[in-house]
Amino acid sequence: MLFKNITILDADLNRRDNMYVGIKGETIDYIDTVEPKEDYGDQYDGKGRLLMSGFFNSHAHTPMTLLRGYGENMSLQDWLTKRIFPFEDKLNGEAVYAGMLLGIAESLRFGIVSTTDMYYFGDEMAKAILESGVKNNLGRGVVNFSEDGDISDLQGFQETKHLFETYHNAGNGKLRVDISLHGEYTSNPKTALHLAEYMKSVGANMHVHVSETEFEQEECKKRHGMTPVQYLSRNGLFDTKATAAHCVWLEEEDFDILAEKGVTVASCPISNLKLASGVCNIPLLLKKGVNVAIGTDSVASNNSLNMIEEMKVFAIVNKGKQFNPTLITPKETIRAATFAGAKGQGRDDCGKLAVGFKADLVVMDLSQPNMHPVHDLATNLVYSASGSDVLLTMADGRILYQNGEYRTIDIEKTIYEAGKSTNRILGELK
Amino acid sequence: MLFKNITILDADLNRRDNMYVGIKGETIDYIDTVEPKEDYGDQYDGKGRLLMSGFFNSHAHTPMTLLRGYGENMSLQDWLTKRIFPFEDKLNGEAVYAGMLLGIAESLRFGIVSTTDMYYFGDEMAKAILESGVKNNLGRGVVNFSEDGDISDLQGFQETKHLFETYHNAGNGKLRVDISLHGEYTSNPKTALHLAEYMKSVGANMHVHVSETEFEQEECKKRHGMTPVQYLSRNGLFDTKATAAHCVWLEEEDFDILAEKGVTVASCPISNLKLASGVCNIPLLLKKGVNVAIGTDSVASNNSLNMIEEMKVFAIVNKGKQFNPTLITPKETIRAATFAGAKGQGRDDCGKLAVGFKADLVVMDLSQPNMHPVHDLATNLVYSASGSDVLLTMADGRILYQNGEYRTIDIEKTIYEAGKSTNRILGELK
Repeated sequence: MLFKNITILDADLNRRDNMYVGIKGETIDYIDTVEPKEDYGDQYDGKGRLLMSGFFNSHAHTPMTLLRGYGENMSLQDWLTKRIFPFEDKLNGEAVYAGMLLGIAESLRFGIVSTTDMYYFGDEMAKAILESGVKNNLGRGVVNFSEDGDISDLQGFQETKHLFETYHNAGNGKLRVDISLHGEYTSNPKTALHLAEYMKSVGANMHVHVSETEFEQEECKKRHGMTPVQYLSRNGLFDTKATAAHCVWLEEEDFDILAEKGVTVASCPISNLKLASGVCNIPLLLKKGVNVAIGTDSVASNNSLNMIEEMKVFAIVNKGKQFNPTLITPKETIRAATFAGAKGQGRDDCGKLAVGFKADLVVMDLSQPNMHPVHDLATNLVYSASGSDVLLTMADGRILYQNGEYRTIDIEKTIYEAGKSTNRILGELK
Repeated sequence: MLFKNITILDADLNRRDNMYVGIKGETIDYIDTVEPKEDYGDQYDGKGRLLMSGFFNSHAHTPMTLLRGYGENMSLQDWLTKRIFPFEDKLNGEAVYAGMLLGIAESLRFGIVSTTDMYYFGDEMAKAILESGVKNNLGRGVVNFSEDGDISDLQGFQETKHLFETYHNAGNGKLRVDISLHGEYTSNPKTALHLAEYMKSVGANMHVHVSETEFEQEECKKRHGMTPVQYLSRNGLFDTKATAAHCVWLEEEDFDILAEKGVTVASCPISNLKLASGVCNIPLLLKKGVNVAIGTDSVASNNSLNMIEEMKVFAIVNKGKQFNPTLITPKETIRAATFAGAKGQGRDDCGKLAVGFKADLVVMDLSQPNMHPVHDLATNLVYSASGSDVLLTMADGRILYQNGEYRTIDIEKTIYEAGKSTNRILGELK
């Protein structure tokens, strides 16, 4: 495929107009101002359009689309115990498969090519991932509320092992399986330690919730005499490529540990505001050299998978909180939503529009009034674009979404099935 | 015109499916579940779509589209003195007309039917408003940096008077002219007093910046021994239907004054975060019974006119700041973006989908994956919709925007002219 006369945000996120970009198989093969001699097949007229890296969603629970708007304006405790947990208790594989496909469709509409996910019914999630052709780092959060630290009997660990052995690097590497400890507060030290050992023995990534709420932070310090970051680091969870979601309540030493250990922080600014958790100190993380990425968290707490919107909130919320409008630039924001996310997923050849990188791309509409004039294209993308200005989403050189059409998902059936499962669960909860 | 089989958010923002809504002239004439006997003309198939009140943008400087992304990541002082003021100094009527039309097109794309505006080159703004068929409360912010309080010689006052006498209630009332004091910190007490007298003598509304930054708040208290709200109230600026933009740094008594005086607060959450001004305490304003509306502020500080996005930030930012997820419901948010805004503009027959109200309406796409499932439609609208899910925008019963097409604006020419004026100014600034 050849994109012609298209504007791009290049590997350094600079604007270049009237470009030719050739895709060979899964890979970006050609970027230049002159037409290539090689025949790349189908041609795409890029006039008035922007080609750039697709977005990498670094923390989500995609099947929770089914709970979109189900629990609102409630305290965290009521939200969890009266809404989320009872609903989740009624989930089955069919419901998770429908919710996952619905979330993948929404992700594609908003330009997300790859997601770091944590949920259960992993077989059905994997089925939806492989069928739809997106990329995913799939994890099954391990929890252990007992005193016993042995992980071998835990359902979460058994499922994790099954997922890793069955699906890791499936779909030509598009589907990776991460090991996931749900969090410090939902497990115990032995469980953490044993899971870290397993993770290291198989060479997998880690995905874990960290310091999302003040309560979690303070209780961890009471229980263990140290912060969640310190606790997880001591127990070996960061001795691999790790993604730490949220990181709202980090304390001084935590920033250094995350930097030293090369941990990717998946900041979820909308979810953190909406659930009243707080604001992650992104500027300090960036200053310390931490790889900062962006997550939507689940649709139950966001309530969308709109990465364009998430970028805007990511870029402005620390300006507001720290009373400093110079914090976090548009380029830092786009990097967090693309390359930093890919890197956190262990996909070092993804997240940049550069020759040799995987063709995980989006085309954005630049012809709309909200994208004019263009003093700076990266700025317009972060602050002025609308989520549904995405015209095309491609993973590994394959178009999955274009102009409202899904190439690999029967969207009407998916919406119908998601509604059916939702209604079945609501009926049972009555 | 007749909308058929459409889902609506009714006057109480409750969802009703399979409705018939008939428009006669400028007015909503019929709302029922059964097909009307009367012939309303053209029929619109509403399957999978939502009909609701259009949005009322309660604080903007629409022609500043030309400065979209021009000054970024700068301190407020640098932003103003190195970017905004020099650029504005080079504006002329042609540039403001192009920027205004561009901003109106963007507003229509995001469902905004009416805007409370403050800027200059008012004749050119009025021309764009009347040509495009939108509603606007137009004001020319009066400033006076001299010691002299006499307003009769001030250019801002002369222009205000000219605008009021020439355009107030033009376009069959779609264009209203408000009197506008730019703010406490850009004028003096005599100017404020005299402008209030003029405003009362002609029976006009007031539009004024209030307590946007901490610096403004503290300096006002030093200068006058009272807060900006107290100062404006004492000088008579609130002795009419007044819109107070921002209100970030309100103090205890201020909330009561705004409630007693029936002032409309136009909260601009995105601009306030992005410029690092702070967060307006909406929950307390609502508790005190203040009419709270929503403004985008200018594109120079937002950087879009996306009311769907603005609603989401409006609804979540106080949850995050006050660590309380129960604050501000989706219905309170939609009310702020519709009826409260209309009320603040003195348009009491606007902002509700109800018989007898003006047909200022938008149609939203409900068929996309991000809008499913529907546990609560108002919640999905505020948190899950994307700005460009707006399919149709109508003011006073006239379709102005539909499926990407502008009925009253030559969009390609407008984008071209806005770019041309921008480039002319940038050239002169070099």
